[in-house]
Amino acid sequence: MIGDPLPTEKLEGELLPKHLALPIFASDPLSSVAYAPQELLMILMVGGLAFLSFAPWVAVAVIVLLVTVVASYRQLIRAYPSGGGDYEVAHRNLGEKAGLVVASSLLVDYVMTVVVSVASGVDNIISAIPELNPFRVELAVVFVIILAAVNLRGVSESSRAFAVPTYLFIASVFVMIVVGLTRTFLGDAPVSESAGFVVESESLTQAGIILLLLRSFASGCSALTGVEAISNGVPAFRQPKIRNAQATLVLMGGIAIVLFAGLTALALISQVHYAEDPCHLIGWAECATEPQRSLIAQVASATFGDDTALFYLIQAATALVLLLAANTAFNGFPLLGSVLAQDGYAPKSLSTRGDRLIYSNGVLILALAASVILVVFQANLTVLIQLYIIGVFVSFTLGQTGMVRHWLRELRSPRKPTSSKSPRSSRGDADDRSAPITRGAIWRALAINAIGAAMTAVVLIVVTVTKFTHGAWIVFVMMPILFTLMLGVHRYYRDVEKEIEVDPTTTFGSAGDHAIVLVGRMQKPTLKALDYAIAARHDSLEAVHVSLYEEETKRLKKDWVKQNIHVKLRILNSPYRDLSYPLIQYIKSRREEHGSEVVTVYMPQYIVGHWWESLLHNHKARRIRQKLLLVHGVTVSLVPWLLDSSDLIYGRRSRPLPGQDRRGEPVRPVPRRPISSDGQKRGR
Amino acid sequence: MIGDPLPTEKLEGELLPKHLALPIFASDPLSSVAYAPQELLMILMVGGLAFLSFAPWVAVAVIVLLVTVVASYRQLIRAYPSGGGDYEVAHRNLGEKAGLVVASSLLVDYVMTVVVSVASGVDNIISAIPELNPFRVELAVVFVIILAAVNLRGVSESSRAFAVPTYLFIASVFVMIVVGLTRTFLGDAPVSESAGFVVESESLTQAGIILLLLRSFASGCSALTGVEAISNGVPAFRQPKIRNAQATLVLMGGIAIVLFAGLTALALISQVHYAEDPCHLIGWAECATEPQRSLIAQVASATFGDDTALFYLIQAATALVLLLAANTAFNGFPLLGSVLAQDGYAPKSLSTRGDRLIYSNGVLILALAASVILVVFQANLTVLIQLYIIGVFVSFTLGQTGMVRHWLRELRSPRKPTSSKSPRSSRGDADDRSAPITRGAIWRALAINAIGAAMTAVVLIVVTVTKFTHGAWIVFVMMPILFTLMLGVHRYYRDVEKEIEVDPTTTFGSAGDHAIVLVGRMQKPTLKALDYAIAARHDSLEAVHVSLYEEETKRLKKDWVKQNIHVKLRILNSPYRDLSYPLIQYIKSRREEHGSEVVTVYMPQYIVGHWWESLLHNHKARRIRQKLLLVHGVTVSLVPWLLDSSDLIYGRRSRPLPGQDRRGEPVRPVPRRPISSDGQKRGR
Repeated sequence: MIGDPLPTEKLEGELLPKHLALPIFASDPLSSVAYAPQELLMILMVGGLAFLSFAPWVAVAVIVLLVTVVASYRQLIRAYPSGGGDYEVAHRNLGEKAGLVVASSLLVDYVMTVVVSVASGVDNIISAIPELNPFRVELAVVFVIILAAVNLRGVSESSRAFAVPTYLFIASVFVMIVVGLTRTFLGDAPVSESAGFVVESESLTQAGIILLLLRSFASGCSALTGVEAISNGVPAFRQPKIRNAQATLVLMGGIAIVLFAGLTALALISQVHYAEDPCHLIGWAECATEPQRSLIAQVASATFGDDTALFYLIQAATALVLLLAANTAFNGFPLLGSVLAQDGYAPKSLSTRGDRLIYSNGVLILALAASVILVVFQANLTVLIQLYIIGVFVSFTLGQTGMVRHWLRELRSPRKPTSSKSPRSSRGDADDRSAPITRGAIWRALAINAIGAAMTAVVLIVVTVTKFTHGAWIVFVMMPILFTLMLGVHRYYRDVEKEIEVDPTTTFGSAGDHAIVLVGRMQKPTLKALDYAIAARHDSLEAVHVSLYEEETKRLKKDWVKQNIHVKLRILNSPYRDLSYPLIQYIKSRREEHGSEVVTVYMPQYIVGHWWESLLHNHKARRIRQKLLLVHGVTVSLVPWLLDSSDLIYGRRSRPLPGQDRRGEPVRPVPRRPISSDGQKRGR
Repeated sequence: MIGDPLPTEKLEGELLPKHLALPIFASDPLSSVAYAPQELLMILMVGGLAFLSFAPWVAVAVIVLLVTVVASYRQLIRAYPSGGGDYEVAHRNLGEKAGLVVASSLLVDYVMTVVVSVASGVDNIISAIPELNPFRVELAVVFVIILAAVNLRGVSESSRAFAVPTYLFIASVFVMIVVGLTRTFLGDAPVSESAGFVVESESLTQAGIILLLLRSFASGCSALTGVEAISNGVPAFRQPKIRNAQATLVLMGGIAIVLFAGLTALALISQVHYAEDPCHLIGWAECATEPQRSLIAQVASATFGDDTALFYLIQAATALVLLLAANTAFNGFPLLGSVLAQDGYAPKSLSTRGDRLIYSNGVLILALAASVILVVFQANLTVLIQLYIIGVFVSFTLGQTGMVRHWLRELRSPRKPTSSKSPRSSRGDADDRSAPITRGAIWRALAINAIGAAMTAVVLIVVTVTKFTHGAWIVFVMMPILFTLMLGVHRYYRDVEKEIEVDPTTTFGSAGDHAIVLVGRMQKPTLKALDYAIAARHDSLEAVHVSLYEEETKRLKKDWVKQNIHVKLRILNSPYRDLSYPLIQYIKSRREEHGSEVVTVYMPQYIVGHWWESLLHNHKARRIRQKLLLVHGVTVSLVPWLLDSSDLIYGRRSRPLPGQDRRGEPVRPVPRRPISSDGQKRGR
């Protein structure tokens, strides 16, 4: 028996080294730096410019949270290297319901990743080219359509080309921070275009101030979105997978902190004043006609000067990395779908690899949902961020809680091996070289995950309280719907499984063998079906024609004689011009005579090359087939007839499927199948 | 041999007597009286109130045209009683291309019938209940949705209930005309609410005046829409079909003329002043906020008084008859589709009776197209009328021209029988009792149709010239698209027909018979498939399992022994976790050994009861099936497994299909098929 599905060396060649894994999995978390500082500062300024003095503290709180979450996911990667992520952790440690809550929050999350990233990307494009402002929503939807089209055509997420924007973004923003801070130390601090504007402020009560600070913190937490991406991509890393993934995660966290802190500092230094409603900026006359530029654009413009090459580079890199982040969702969505399908919570078809059609559906659903949300919310980043963070923190909290449960269990049975082998771990061959875990290490991991769970839970509560009325309630409507659907699918599969289970009383006792070839007109496909039926040497065989028009029947009888066919042709009359009814009646009357006989009905089936051709064929045959399959004792034999156009379907290339890279599966080299050359034509 | 498909007496009982046929087929042409006078007068008033003096002459021109068209269609009914209408006439006399032009114009026409009738219906509802004005578009779309829903559920067009609104409309409008004219003769002429308003007028050149008169005439011609309906419904009439249909047509024409003339006269008497833009009415302060009431509402209000029961009756009857007219399009659209399909210009599936799904698609397409147009044009009747008349007059002109060609042909071969038996005439058993036609009668018919063709051609040119820039260009874009699609479908069917034609060299020589039962897990459907395969007694039989997961394979082997199955179980290894590839390779290698052997692959097929269940089943099986059908020598045997939920599909009622009545086909009494009782369960 051949044990290994693929030679390991070959697999290794397709896996990602760290310097490629970082940009590919980190585009999502790093790109969130492009909007998190802006949203953090904007909310603070609702209370007036004086509130900006709180900004460093809020930023520090976000960074502390980021460190905690990164540390927590380091533990998760070690314990669950199969790529199942928070869903797997919650499902296996907290039970089915918790797993489904995480799954529904992740599904919402993927949609919102696309929406927020595209909205922010468009915002940054408009910041560079203000003339595009009237087409904000259109641009956003066009980008979603492009992303969907690219993923429908098939593009490998791990393509090296995808590494460029992330590195470009990191490098250019880093240079900007260094230049900006250097200028500040030299006494030439950059001054932003909005420095002179005062922000209209609401007068706040003590409680209002606290709520504002919490809201600002909650918005700043959007910097954490996407941190979980690496934990889903462990199978795609090179050996030692776990250590490489952990190192990449820490590196990503470090970069995110530097960029987030640097951008926030530069924005404060250059006095970027940003308001949700630009006309709340007192002193800006063109507020109604001109777009308010994004924080990153204002900082870049203040640091490098407007209309400089470096300014445009920053904006281009930001927009690109954001679109790349949206692309990761197009990869993650079908992957999650397949994991859910394997567990029986989504249609099983989602779990089968290699069917482009199914993945297409996932891509289309994601694109449609994202487009609808972009249109409904007019690609307004601030509003969309409100919807985004909820889902993220639901999965953070439940994932970390699951990890706590996991470590507690490990403590109780300390003899178990380190990385728990999940049923799915075969997908992403776990790293067995990692050292066995000590009780001390377990206690440390437990502490880290407990702190992570507690902090993300607090943030979840804060986010819910502060964002609920700002649109987050929509997420609270969507998630239970998804949850219920997934539970329903699971129940259905369970019931069917029970229904078709073999028990000791299962016996079938068919006896007798009769074959019917359904004949309409004298055509090649019919003759082929007849030929196959003859070759199968049934006990008895007859051709059956249902007579709808006397003229046609007469012609068929003549042709039958002319072609010298020695199979009996039985004519059934159809008083109601219905094809299937007389046939079914005939079969039933036969069975009444012959007992539990199996009747094989041969029908030609056209195989076509274009999707639209199927609109023009096989409908009558399909209807008859469906009705025949309801008759006791009938089996329908499909005899294929390949139309010339079907040659087309052999020319299809094998293209990467969304989510393929994260699973660590290389593109399978599909061997050429020269069916067309020895196809049915030779048989004629 | 049983010759007759249905006993004639039985059929007769289902056919329509004249007093039912009139209201059912005439709702479309009669309802157009509700908007034609309004549009005619409105265009005239663009030139100023003085132009109203031309109104009687324009109205007379419309009536003359109506008489001509009715006379022409009387001839058409006699010559083509099969219900094919203008399409059939043009196709058979002027050739394929002309037929397709008519077909595409009719398809557009059906959509516009729904749009215009619903828009006018809503306008009349708003005229009675002005509070609904802000919801004009929404109301229109809701009515389209209701009509679609009713037709999806299935409702017989010939239901007696449908006769009520038409008679109510005729009676109430007739009473109104009599009352109005009587009051006028008694010196108490009704005065409409808009009598005091002056209409802003453009100053016109001589050419402008002529163009205005032509435009007014063109808009008035909307009174002719739907006249062709009776010619499509001849098969539904009682014997003598032709004479009854002709009588009904003439009666309908007479009523239409009386209502059209009466309404126009009353509008002129009561000085209804109506403008496309209500704010062109000088003296009306509320033009921007209040809806302008329809002409028929203003006349009713002037005649009976506002807020009287009779006023509301008129409005209700008008709205109802308009919605009924829209409903006729929902019946006509699928009927035309089936005629086109029989001729090979539309997917063949459209020609098969009894497939609710296909009709559903037609209803949905019609509803969607109508809704889009209503939303885009904001249910603005005046704009929509521009799009409507083009299609109508294209089919009028080509139909009449075809009739001219038909009579000329009859003159050349005078010995032929009267009603030309079309291949479709069997559908609507033609009336054979009509007297043989004389040469004089042919000459008279020829003259009538020639005049009809000439006049409708002139109107078509007038309509095109005057309406092209007012939106009619859209129709000129849509029609060629539909035309090309239909031609393409025809070419495709022709090519396929050629490809599968049996020629003297057609031979197939399969030898050898091997059966494979595809086994995944040990489940009842698999055992049933195995049982059937054993019953068919193939030369050789084996069970094949493609091993994806070693664990599953081991369990299957154990179960195989436990169930005591004596069929050899062959395990195929799948290095790439693909089900179909190893199987295909195996079959191919077998065929290389055994030559042109037929390999029958048995696969279980789930039969489910709900549409959504099919989302959860059979996908993997279907994919494998599709790939297997591409392999030379393979036939796939589907062994049905009826899930418990499939019991549901036996309970379905037989409901009327759209277009059924016009064909003169009664609802076929589907005999109960108690399959479920002797279904597969007994076989267990």
